[in-house]
Amino acid sequence: MAAAVARGAWRGRRRVALRLARRDGAPWIASAAASFSSSSVPTTKLFIDGKFVESKTTEWIDIHNPATNEVVGRVPKATASEMEAAVASCKKAFWNWSETSVLSRQQIFLRYQQLIKDNLKEISKLITFEQGKTLADAEGDVFRGLQVVEHACSVTSLILGETMPSITKDMDTYTYRLPLGVCAGIAPFNFPAMIPLWMFPMAMVCGNTFLMKPSERVPGALMFLAKLFQDAGAPDGTLNIIHGQHEAVNFICDHPDIRAISFVGSNQAGEYIYERGSRNGKRVQANMGAKNHGVVMPDANKENTLNQLVGAAFGAAGQRCMALSTAILVGEAQKWLPELVDRAKNLRVNAGDQPGADLGPLISPQAKERVCHLIEKGVKEGASLLLDGRNIKVKGYENGNFVGPTILAKVKPNMTCYKEEIFGPVLVVLEADTLDDAIKMVNNNPYGNGTAIFTTNGATARKYSHLVDVGQGVQFYTQLKTIISQWKEEDATVTKPAVVMPTMGN
Amino acid sequence: MAAAVARGAWRGRRRVALRLARRDGAPWIASAAASFSSSSVPTTKLFIDGKFVESKTTEWIDIHNPATNEVVGRVPKATASEMEAAVASCKKAFWNWSETSVLSRQQIFLRYQQLIKDNLKEISKLITFEQGKTLADAEGDVFRGLQVVEHACSVTSLILGETMPSITKDMDTYTYRLPLGVCAGIAPFNFPAMIPLWMFPMAMVCGNTFLMKPSERVPGALMFLAKLFQDAGAPDGTLNIIHGQHEAVNFICDHPDIRAISFVGSNQAGEYIYERGSRNGKRVQANMGAKNHGVVMPDANKENTLNQLVGAAFGAAGQRCMALSTAILVGEAQKWLPELVDRAKNLRVNAGDQPGADLGPLISPQAKERVCHLIEKGVKEGASLLLDGRNIKVKGYENGNFVGPTILAKVKPNMTCYKEEIFGPVLVVLEADTLDDAIKMVNNNPYGNGTAIFTTNGATARKYSHLVDVGQGVQFYTQLKTIISQWKEEDATVTKPAVVMPTMGN
Amino acid sequence: MAAAVARGAWRGRRRVALRLARRDGAPWIASAAASFSSSSVPTTKLFIDGKFVESKTTEWIDIHNPATNEVVGRVPKATASEMEAAVASCKKAFWNWSETSVLSRQQIFLRYQQLIKDNLKEISKLITFEQGKTLADAEGDVFRGLQVVEHACSVTSLILGETMPSITKDMDTYTYRLPLGVCAGIAPFNFPAMIPLWMFPMAMVCGNTFLMKPSERVPGALMFLAKLFQDAGAPDGTLNIIHGQHEAVNFICDHPDIRAISFVGSNQAGEYIYERGSRNGKRVQANMGAKNHGVVMPDANKENTLNQLVGAAFGAAGQRCMALSTAILVGEAQKWLPELVDRAKNLRVNAGDQPGADLGPLISPQAKERVCHLIEKGVKEGASLLLDGRNIKVKGYENGNFVGPTILAKVKPNMTCYKEEIFGPVLVVLEADTLDDAIKMVNNNPYGNGTAIFTTNGATARKYSHLVDVGQGVQFYTQLKTIISQWKEEDATVTKPAVVMPTMGN
Amino acid sequence: MAAAVARGAWRGRRRVALRLARRDGAPWIASAAASFSSSSVPTTKLFIDGKFVESKTTEWIDIHNPATNEVVGRVPKATASEMEAAVASCKKAFWNWSETSVLSRQQIFLRYQQLIKDNLKEISKLITFEQGKTLADAEGDVFRGLQVVEHACSVTSLILGETMPSITKDMDTYTYRLPLGVCAGIAPFNFPAMIPLWMFPMAMVCGNTFLMKPSERVPGALMFLAKLFQDAGAPDGTLNIIHGQHEAVNFICDHPDIRAISFVGSNQAGEYIYERGSRNGKRVQANMGAKNHGVVMPDANKENTLNQLVGAAFGAAGQRCMALSTAILVGEAQKWLPELVDRAKNLRVNAGDQPGADLGPLISPQAKERVCHLIEKGVKEGASLLLDGRNIKVKGYENGNFVGPTILAKVKPNMTCYKEEIFGPVLVVLEADTLDDAIKMVNNNPYGNGTAIFTTNGATARKYSHLVDVGQGVQFYTQLKTIISQWKEEDATVTKPAVVMPTMGN
Repeated sequence: MAAAVARGAWRGRRRVALRLARRDGAPWIASAAASFSSSSVPTTKLFIDGKFVESKTTEWIDIHNPATNEVVGRVPKATASEMEAAVASCKKAFWNWSETSVLSRQQIFLRYQQLIKDNLKEISKLITFEQGKTLADAEGDVFRGLQVVEHACSVTSLILGETMPSITKDMDTYTYRLPLGVCAGIAPFNFPAMIPLWMFPMAMVCGNTFLMKPSERVPGALMFLAKLFQDAGAPDGTLNIIHGQHEAVNFICDHPDIRAISFVGSNQAGEYIYERGSRNGKRVQANMGAKNHGVVMPDANKENTLNQLVGAAFGAAGQRCMALSTAILVGEAQKWLPELVDRAKNLRVNAGDQPGADLGPLISPQAKERVCHLIEKGVKEGASLLLDGRNIKVKGYENGNFVGPTILAKVKPNMTCYKEEIFGPVLVVLEADTLDDAIKMVNNNPYGNGTAIFTTNGATARKYSHLVDVGQGVQFYTQLKTIISQWKEEDATVTKPAVVMPTMGN
Repeated sequence: MAAAVARGAWRGRRRVALRLARRDGAPWIASAAASFSSSSVPTTKLFIDGKFVESKTTEWIDIHNPATNEVVGRVPKATASEMEAAVASCKKAFWNWSETSVLSRQQIFLRYQQLIKDNLKEISKLITFEQGKTLADAEGDVFRGLQVVEHACSVTSLILGETMPSITKDMDTYTYRLPLGVCAGIAPFNFPAMIPLWMFPMAMVCGNTFLMKPSERVPGALMFLAKLFQDAGAPDGTLNIIHGQHEAVNFICDHPDIRAISFVGSNQAGEYIYERGSRNGKRVQANMGAKNHGVVMPDANKENTLNQLVGAAFGAAGQRCMALSTAILVGEAQKWLPELVDRAKNLRVNAGDQPGADLGPLISPQAKERVCHLIEKGVKEGASLLLDGRNIKVKGYENGNFVGPTILAKVKPNMTCYKEEIFGPVLVVLEADTLDDAIKMVNNNPYGNGTAIFTTNGATARKYSHLVDVGQGVQFYTQLKTIISQWKEEDATVTKPAVVMPTMGN
Repeated sequence: MAAAVARGAWRGRRRVALRLARRDGAPWIASAAASFSSSSVPTTKLFIDGKFVESKTTEWIDIHNPATNEVVGRVPKATASEMEAAVASCKKAFWNWSETSVLSRQQIFLRYQQLIKDNLKEISKLITFEQGKTLADAEGDVFRGLQVVEHACSVTSLILGETMPSITKDMDTYTYRLPLGVCAGIAPFNFPAMIPLWMFPMAMVCGNTFLMKPSERVPGALMFLAKLFQDAGAPDGTLNIIHGQHEAVNFICDHPDIRAISFVGSNQAGEYIYERGSRNGKRVQANMGAKNHGVVMPDANKENTLNQLVGAAFGAAGQRCMALSTAILVGEAQKWLPELVDRAKNLRVNAGDQPGADLGPLISPQAKERVCHLIEKGVKEGASLLLDGRNIKVKGYENGNFVGPTILAKVKPNMTCYKEEIFGPVLVVLEADTLDDAIKMVNNNPYGNGTAIFTTNGATARKYSHLVDVGQGVQFYTQLKTIISQWKEEDATVTKPAVVMPTMGN
Repeated sequence: MAAAVARGAWRGRRRVALRLARRDGAPWIASAAASFSSSSVPTTKLFIDGKFVESKTTEWIDIHNPATNEVVGRVPKATASEMEAAVASCKKAFWNWSETSVLSRQQIFLRYQQLIKDNLKEISKLITFEQGKTLADAEGDVFRGLQVVEHACSVTSLILGETMPSITKDMDTYTYRLPLGVCAGIAPFNFPAMIPLWMFPMAMVCGNTFLMKPSERVPGALMFLAKLFQDAGAPDGTLNIIHGQHEAVNFICDHPDIRAISFVGSNQAGEYIYERGSRNGKRVQANMGAKNHGVVMPDANKENTLNQLVGAAFGAAGQRCMALSTAILVGEAQKWLPELVDRAKNLRVNAGDQPGADLGPLISPQAKERVCHLIEKGVKEGASLLLDGRNIKVKGYENGNFVGPTILAKVKPNMTCYKEEIFGPVLVVLEADTLDDAIKMVNNNPYGNGTAIFTTNGATARKYSHLVDVGQGVQFYTQLKTIISQWKEEDATVTKPAVVMPTMGN
């Protein structure tokens, strides 16, 4: 089977150090020896026009294992001409791909979902290796992306347009959902598989071609996924991958052949990309940092609520339905705080590939420093630090970027730890007297794009869901083309033999 | 305005006896004098091909005022040739009507909804006069039908078909929702305006033409509505009305030019029509008698629950969201029974047009007798008669078919009063220990087509709504036509001047 | 892989006679030796509650290879208690299956589509072996069924209900598409794989369980497909298979636990099942015999038109978009008839598994006799027999039920060969002066459920598609449940600490 | 009827000069005497919080009758505090309006459509008076806006969300379409009624409140429409109107309480508003200047094609389905040019309110000058001026801004007259050899948002509609809120009497 190539061989060197059973042959990573530079770590390739190619750049970025801070690979800043070649490949491939029947495109995704399932464990190991999260979280990461690939298999139901007959004499209208052209995606480091899979499969099954730029810190999962996609039958040029940082982002925002950009990441980057891309006339979809709130009502099922809160805030954030960084305890529910702290304390912090790990390291020393700084600031501004994970030591991984579960209570809306996205295992707890107060708090925070309420009361749930402001989704990857067709009855073929001159002879 | 004719004049005779300010000129009721027979009551006309015409039949049915049992009119059993003429008119009108643009059809319904609003009080008086219900209930009757007419104004959103481009090379598919042809409706006596308005407006705005047979006991409201529909601009023949009983029903079930039948009424009639119509290859939609259950949980808001139960079971059934004839009190909610009885006692029974009336009479002496018999049978089979409305006397209407609010408690599922539809102001109360028991009871009753649960608990509501079996709705009045169009690129007009012979010279 | 079992072993005996590489181990066919009777042919098993079991019946039906008329297997008439066990298994499995998350159900179909692809050639051989059609046609048969399995993977888009917020104060409505319960399918002999795959996958992915009765002449493909479905993870009891003839059909029409029936087959059987099933309160969907018409306009692309006509009428009917048994040539297009005959003459008739075969044998000697009789009758009633396939001899298959391509021209609407479904390689050709005449002919035939027009003119195509009557599709396998929820704001949890007694203590 | 006020009285002064039968009482225009300034022309009011109020500004803009260039009114540049008051009114009204049931909102639009119909002629006169177009065009302007109001009556079908049951255990998802909040619209001068009616009705029926800024040149129609909307029952504050130029636009782009902006107008303004609004985090919908192309194939119905081209390019642009400023004649269709010129010559140019007028004046002397300049430039760059309307004299309106029908042929894509939007009665004609060439031309022009092809060939039409790039529509005025609800079965109310403490006592 085609996927055998992808699964088969990787590289075979430095196996112990990498803690990942790579084998020779992974085509998107150069073996160290073959690499042009003197460095001994492998390099990540570009994926251009169906080929995994080594960049000719002179600028490279190191990839670190967050549990050890060892350098485990390097990723290129693609050159201008490499990026141009990637877009040109997308553009060239668009025409055939968009005219390929939807049933044929669907076939590729039906095979692709199977290949991802067959390789789920391997991809997960690669995520843990570069991103640090536990293997369970990494599997959740792939799994949630896989669901989008499965959803892409529904394309025949998703791209339906509409018809209306006889709006006036001889005239019907119909709309078609047609692809836009070349689309691009810019992905963050926190979900190396899930977020790229949110981006290109839906766009591509609709007939678009796609240019991906993964996070330069965690490119491995996407490269693996690209190989599988090729194995599934994706034609050359339909998906291209470039690497880089600011210049690559600017290139995507500015290139006239790119019609739409999907971004997931920080607020700052998102606003920049939204403005720069919009100014260039592109559709931009930017999903930015979120302070997701969980409102806890005193009539909630306590056991379930505490379990879900701890899980969503710390443990396996990636696999749960809703990641929550902020809890608002309403009325008597405030008394549940000690139990919440107890449960958080019991979580185990370790390298992601170690058995029993509930939490892995942060992505980088800088990320850890930032989180610790925000915790400190919270304390200074008056929050109660009920659980402090800053000084945790993980045996055997003393250089890793670990922070243990942390709970800041008595937080007020004006504190920095509330206003800024922490992006670490820190649960921020606020208090509210009533449901109305809680709703006001949630709505006053501009960054909520998801939220949960814990209650057994149907009216409470309805009120919350109607009044709370949350982010929105839009139909993004297709353009709706409306056609008004007037076929005059008088132009229908007239075939009374006596009067007609045949238009096609016999 | 056109509606002035409809609103304007009625008949002018026997005004006191009729208790309705009829004026000369209502075109669908013959003045007594003009009528061929010696009887002094007015006759109801047929509506055929845009004209209100007197039937040539020799068989007539009396219409009674249920509050007095006076004969207030007569309705013909249409002859075979009259019924044939009505269907022929529908059939002839179909082609033009279905090809009329949807925007033009929509215009008629936009005017129609306004005309019904302008005449709502008049139609309501007519309903009370023939059907007996209170004026408030009669207004609810018209109002709920009016909502369907307003909904018909949404036709442009309702008849959308679907498209899918490029299913294979050069080939697209699209579906259109197109009308069926001639449809027919058979209406019951309990909602003289609402049920006809459920039937013909949606069917007709989609492009069908329609044959209505109203209940022979309450034809007045539909005749009024037909006049308004004509005033709104409905072309001749798009709506036809015949009167009669079994023969008219059989005619509708058998006529080959009728493509679909809507029926609302008793189980017995519904099953008969469903089978006979289906056997003749028609679509049949039969909404039959219902034992709608209200399940009352002890965590419900008691005040609201009792008010809604009393309202839905007795008072203004027609205007409320959900008519309920059976309550299941779960657990502690069983203690609310005395309060329920108290509220029911306070309802006022009177002729429908009397101020302050909460309940009017039943439709006929036979109906009253049947209800009293079922109450008696309930008592004999072991139910507790907590409130008995059988012997009520209404001053000034001693001949009316009145039954007061009645509550039978301790009812078991095997009792006749539970198994048969009572169709009167009788609330049947059962008890259940748990929600699961209540759900089982509801699902064991084959006739539920709507149901309600009273609770504040979201999980209870979800469980109930997933597990309970209720009736279904189907898309009925349109046929979905799927078209697969292959326009080969090679057949596109070729226009290279050097090679082409012009197909239209100059 | 699980499918290895299915693909692996079959039976190993009589390989030459069977002309099919069956291997030991196909669990749904008993080896001859193991069979209770003295017959040397294998028996087809029942599939009940997840097990392939030998019927205890005493009545068996022979299966013949239509190219040789050899007996190649036997199929049981299931006993009453076996059929009861099958329904009981469906009913028992329903609750868990319907509450299984749609995503889990989708997974099974994602695996199933892959298994069918992996086994497509094997299933096709089995179809040719029992049904006679060419291998190319048999592959088309499986392929078109496979598309429905792929479509079932879109379930997440297919079962969407609708919501509307705030229809009045505190009140929302929402509808859910929920499964019906136990559904059943009765399949014909002409498409042994496609039609069963039209039936159970869509029903089951929506949460229904399913009872299949395949044609007793061609049970093999379904048995194979059932094994693959089990391999894909379908829980025991979700699909059950019984065999038989009239009694099995009556059983399905009458059993109170079966909620809906899908039927494809002859008009006579379809009308019987529709009436008997409807009378028992079931939803019945009967797709009956069709006289599909192809209208040929003189402005059509002649080359494409003739190729498609010949293909659709004779050759690989099963694989083409539209099977057409009747052509209406309009105006000058009538002059294309000689060329049409020439192309039909060139088709090769042979056993389905022979290389280069365009047409295989009919299903049985009786079928052949009936076709020849209808051709004869056509000639007697005045049609011109331009091509006569009745006396064809196929070398090496002298006992097969072969009929070669046959063309009857100058056919009139009142001839028997036009009014009855021929179900053989006979193209019936009518003539029309104008498009309007052609439309009238098509609409006067009650059995058209698909139709095509060949033209290059857009106005002609529009006129045809609006005016022609064709069959309809309905949403069949789900019930739409409408819920009106009123959550009063006053019942939302109140949590002002000063007044509230906590409902869940601490 | 409420509309009587609106229709009733206007002002009564200067009737002859105004050429419009205004009567006393139009509440949105101050009588000259009441106006604070010494000017004798009436002033246009603001519409804030349900009241028509005179601006306190010191800056006013003159309104001219384009047929005479007389000053016929003045419009204020609203002050900052007036604009703030308008937004505050929208914001305050939002909560009640969005929670108002959709059925109640629908009622207002059902009345509104009737009021517009009743006043259509009056509004049209006002448009002709301020904008110059013929009365027939003005009626088309209102009529096409009216269709959107009628469409808003379909709200119950338009705001449906979706549900999916049981995505995992106890968990359902549902989406609601909910309003955004305060929305704003900025309208151009060319369609004084239609474009405002494209904007606020759909937004408002979905539950948004709306701030309109009409063109300062043609405010009258909107003021009239606002009065009718109030008469139809729109609550105070749901619609507010401000006047002004750049400052008002900037205010709308910047105000934090405005969630979305709709703009129709020039490319330059549209790009500015899109960028400024997007940067402030708003949804912006900008429909900009268009070069709509009509492609004429030689197989088209010549008569219809020429009539439609002349109509769409010159005559009653507002009423036709598609306004076209550019024609591409393909192949032999190029020979139809002389006939096209002949038909254009026969159009009558006159003041819009004069009988028989086909074309009215341009909006201003500047507009005329710009059009003449572009024609001149076309000639200089090599186009053939086949018909020249620059020097037209209209008797009795010698000061009007008239330009007659003008045809520039042999135009090339690089000419200024092709690249810039002319916005006058100038048809620009290009030539193409083949359909492919024509498609390339259309796709190379960045401003096409609508296009037509004239052909009788279905394949040509399909190819064109698939390959041509045109503008898109998006769902703009609602946010889709997705709710995942998990109601655990264990939390359903438990009511076994033996164990339960009643939560609501008795």
